[in-house]
Amino acid sequence: MQRKEKLIIFLCVLTAVVSGVLHFAGANAVLSFSVSAIALALTAIVVGDATEQLGSRLGPGSTGVLQAAFGNLPELFIAIFALRAGLAHVVQAALVGSILGNSLLVFGLALFLGGLKNGTQRFNSEPPRMIATLMLLAVAALIIPTLSTSLHTPAEPHINNLDIFVAVVLLVLFAASIYFSVKGDPALATQAEAMGHPEWSMGLTIGVLAGAATTAAVVSDWFIEALQPAMGTLGISEGFAGLVIVAIAGNSIENLIGIQLAWRNQIDYAVSVILNGSLQIALGLFPILLILSFFLGGSILTFVLSPLLVVSLALAAIVAAFIVFDGESIWLEGLALIGLYCIIAAAFWWG
Amino acid sequence: MQRKEKLIIFLCVLTAVVSGVLHFAGANAVLSFSVSAIALALTAIVVGDATEQLGSRLGPGSTGVLQAAFGNLPELFIAIFALRAGLAHVVQAALVGSILGNSLLVFGLALFLGGLKNGTQRFNSEPPRMIATLMLLAVAALIIPTLSTSLHTPAEPHINNLDIFVAVVLLVLFAASIYFSVKGDPALATQAEAMGHPEWSMGLTIGVLAGAATTAAVVSDWFIEALQPAMGTLGISEGFAGLVIVAIAGNSIENLIGIQLAWRNQIDYAVSVILNGSLQIALGLFPILLILSFFLGGSILTFVLSPLLVVSLALAAIVAAFIVFDGESIWLEGLALIGLYCIIAAAFWWG
Amino acid sequence: MQRKEKLIIFLCVLTAVVSGVLHFAGANAVLSFSVSAIALALTAIVVGDATEQLGSRLGPGSTGVLQAAFGNLPELFIAIFALRAGLAHVVQAALVGSILGNSLLVFGLALFLGGLKNGTQRFNSEPPRMIATLMLLAVAALIIPTLSTSLHTPAEPHINNLDIFVAVVLLVLFAASIYFSVKGDPALATQAEAMGHPEWSMGLTIGVLAGAATTAAVVSDWFIEALQPAMGTLGISEGFAGLVIVAIAGNSIENLIGIQLAWRNQIDYAVSVILNGSLQIALGLFPILLILSFFLGGSILTFVLSPLLVVSLALAAIVAAFIVFDGESIWLEGLALIGLYCIIAAAFWWG
Repeated sequence: MQRKEKLIIFLCVLTAVVSGVLHFAGANAVLSFSVSAIALALTAIVVGDATEQLGSRLGPGSTGVLQAAFGNLPELFIAIFALRAGLAHVVQAALVGSILGNSLLVFGLALFLGGLKNGTQRFNSEPPRMIATLMLLAVAALIIPTLSTSLHTPAEPHINNLDIFVAVVLLVLFAASIYFSVKGDPALATQAEAMGHPEWSMGLTIGVLAGAATTAAVVSDWFIEALQPAMGTLGISEGFAGLVIVAIAGNSIENLIGIQLAWRNQIDYAVSVILNGSLQIALGLFPILLILSFFLGGSILTFVLSPLLVVSLALAAIVAAFIVFDGESIWLEGLALIGLYCIIAAAFWWG
Repeated sequence: MQRKEKLIIFLCVLTAVVSGVLHFAGANAVLSFSVSAIALALTAIVVGDATEQLGSRLGPGSTGVLQAAFGNLPELFIAIFALRAGLAHVVQAALVGSILGNSLLVFGLALFLGGLKNGTQRFNSEPPRMIATLMLLAVAALIIPTLSTSLHTPAEPHINNLDIFVAVVLLVLFAASIYFSVKGDPALATQAEAMGHPEWSMGLTIGVLAGAATTAAVVSDWFIEALQPAMGTLGISEGFAGLVIVAIAGNSIENLIGIQLAWRNQIDYAVSVILNGSLQIALGLFPILLILSFFLGGSILTFVLSPLLVVSLALAAIVAAFIVFDGESIWLEGLALIGLYCIIAAAFWWG
Repeated sequence: MQRKEKLIIFLCVLTAVVSGVLHFAGANAVLSFSVSAIALALTAIVVGDATEQLGSRLGPGSTGVLQAAFGNLPELFIAIFALRAGLAHVVQAALVGSILGNSLLVFGLALFLGGLKNGTQRFNSEPPRMIATLMLLAVAALIIPTLSTSLHTPAEPHINNLDIFVAVVLLVLFAASIYFSVKGDPALATQAEAMGHPEWSMGLTIGVLAGAATTAAVVSDWFIEALQPAMGTLGISEGFAGLVIVAIAGNSIENLIGIQLAWRNQIDYAVSVILNGSLQIALGLFPILLILSFFLGGSILTFVLSPLLVVSLALAAIVAAFIVFDGESIWLEGLALIGLYCIIAAAFWWG
């Protein structure tokens, strides 16, 4: 294990412990919330490192499956605790917010900073276009339940059945996309490039993974409990909190990686990582949580979103697809994406 | 006349006769409906063969005009009888369903099966992109009347006038697109490739064409009469019946051809055939039927659709355009298109 | 100064004087309106010539800034007088109408006429794609306030704040896009190609510019005063007048230039000029007028449009982007764009 990895595990444990102390001491909600958010972000890095170690032991094919399974682990725990706390609206907003955050804010920051540093950036390889197209199809599927409800179609009273049907279709596509990338077809293979040799022993790897997963589960609980009082103190609406704050906290690390890659002029790889993040939420995390929510005993998650969220999703998917299909990007496009994200976020400020 | 062609004419006559017997014997509605659907599908093949013979006698330019005129003959008769039976909603749903079926289900099956057999498929030639763009423009035009009505604009009380205006504009574009392909410009020329020598005598050709048209007209009547009781027996809503069942029955043959071409790795040609099917309905069949409906004495057809249908049309056109513009397709994209079609169909299940 | 330039200045002064005479003589409103519209169009040419002279003296970088500042001067004055006359709805409609007119009608005419004359036209350079993408992002931002209001989100009572926020974001992008083109980056550089040598003295240039600006300001007032009675006489609704008539009158000259370029087979340059016109209105003129309207003491301008206008804007931006991304155009696509424009205009006929 390298020094950097050890340091991160140490910081992760430290912030998790501090987060627990603050939680049980009934400390200031904003402080509690912030520390648990940092702890969760650090847990995400540890899970990422451990998954990579496990993957380098099991071969590139399995890495895709493992990353799909563990990559969204912290978000999964946050969402489960929020659902059990009856906060289905916050979970919904956070899931959509993650997609919007990836496809507009993070993508925009990557193009903006990458473009400022490296000038006009070209990305003509196939994976980004494929991911953008699949994302568009996933968003198209996601918006049907909302429209069926808000347009008062005859499907409205059967919305739970429609939700489950949509979830099953999306999960079939999710499974197919994992099979596709595992089979080694180069078209979606974005993960395997930087594969190294295994450095941790098998026992250590599994131990770290188990420990990180437990930490994520425990800290998620405190994070969600601190969420409502913290937002109340700051005067932030629940919708905005889910859409922007929980979404950014839950994905901060993946986001940094994507921006870093663009900065280093690896724009193809950056675009794939960033848009793949959106795709995994739309095809995997959202439908899994929806089905889980029927068994958790809290509030039930639904694909029926506020119409403005649906339009924002559609805009984000279309705009991102055009930028990807353009094959050439300038910092001005990045700035415009950031601007669009800010405008959408502002529209939810009075949530 | 080849043996295969004779066999199909024989089967066509046989099923048409059986369909008539079932009709006048007052047989089970589902059986009646199914046999008449098969008879109509076989009639479509016969019309196609006869049109090709006529075309090879008159030159490639005329073939385009003839195919545009006769290719949708069975659908035209089905729609006319349905309109006279007061089933304007079923006709509307079937027309939109044909477009959705072509652009999502058939296109998806072609990419899925073609991709499974042939790996990543490339289609970089111009015709598919041109057709996808025209389709997008046609859909954009089609959705204005619905929006004018459901958004309660001042145009709402004048919707019949707006409908007729839209129909005239679309028919002008239809005429222009036929002129374009007849003029021999290669950009939209998808039909003329497999042109053979005339094998039937002129008399035989015209006789077969007249016979097939008469059969289509008569059987369409029985098909429509069996539709409502058959759907009632099966417990299928009228909206779903039009959108999915009538649409698939009316286009089954063209659809099989498109899928077959993709399977044989002629993906460019397959995409052109499939999307051209959508385009002819949007630019030709729908506006012609709308204008005809004012003279038929049944219910009046309108471009004012249910808002969910309009959104589905827009999604289908945008998604199909992106896949075409991508220039490269994998079976996963095909699967995602099929999934989107299933979700849209499911939303109309409770029609 | 060349003879042609002198002639235009003479005609401009002549029509402005006639327009004034008609105004103070209380002449027929339709005549008054038409003459002042011609005077404004001629003023636009004079402003364009003077800006070019100033630009050729100050270098290509400054030309972009000058064109952005002076290019929309007549529209700016028309809008200011209309706002002060309480005609915010007409101004809104005219701004959206200019975008639709550029992106559908003028773009369509350019492709149609250019395609008829020159056959299939190819435009593969980067600037048009970049402009189309930015236009899409601008439209996406523009439609958020309307949706926030018409979907009755919690932002509805705070719509003025949201409007101002959107305006500021758009103006930041406008400033960034001017900086981008001034910096000499070739990606958006469409203006500098035909740059000549300065021929007018500095004093003459500034004098002409000042005179033209004054003329534009004065004639705009008469134009707006004649607008309502003229439309009343002709039986044209206010919405249609703004969307179609004011929009076309205010942009007639830029539009002719774009069409002329396509006719001469300079399709890349034509597309850039036409879509840039839309982009400057969306990123510059509309937000500037919105902020100005809070200080003018007339009616307040808002981004909250009629929902049908918003859908039309989105359709126009998406359709134009696909045509640009296609890289190849035929006259049939141009005709389809013109058809879509006519259908949208027809939907507002009963405004």
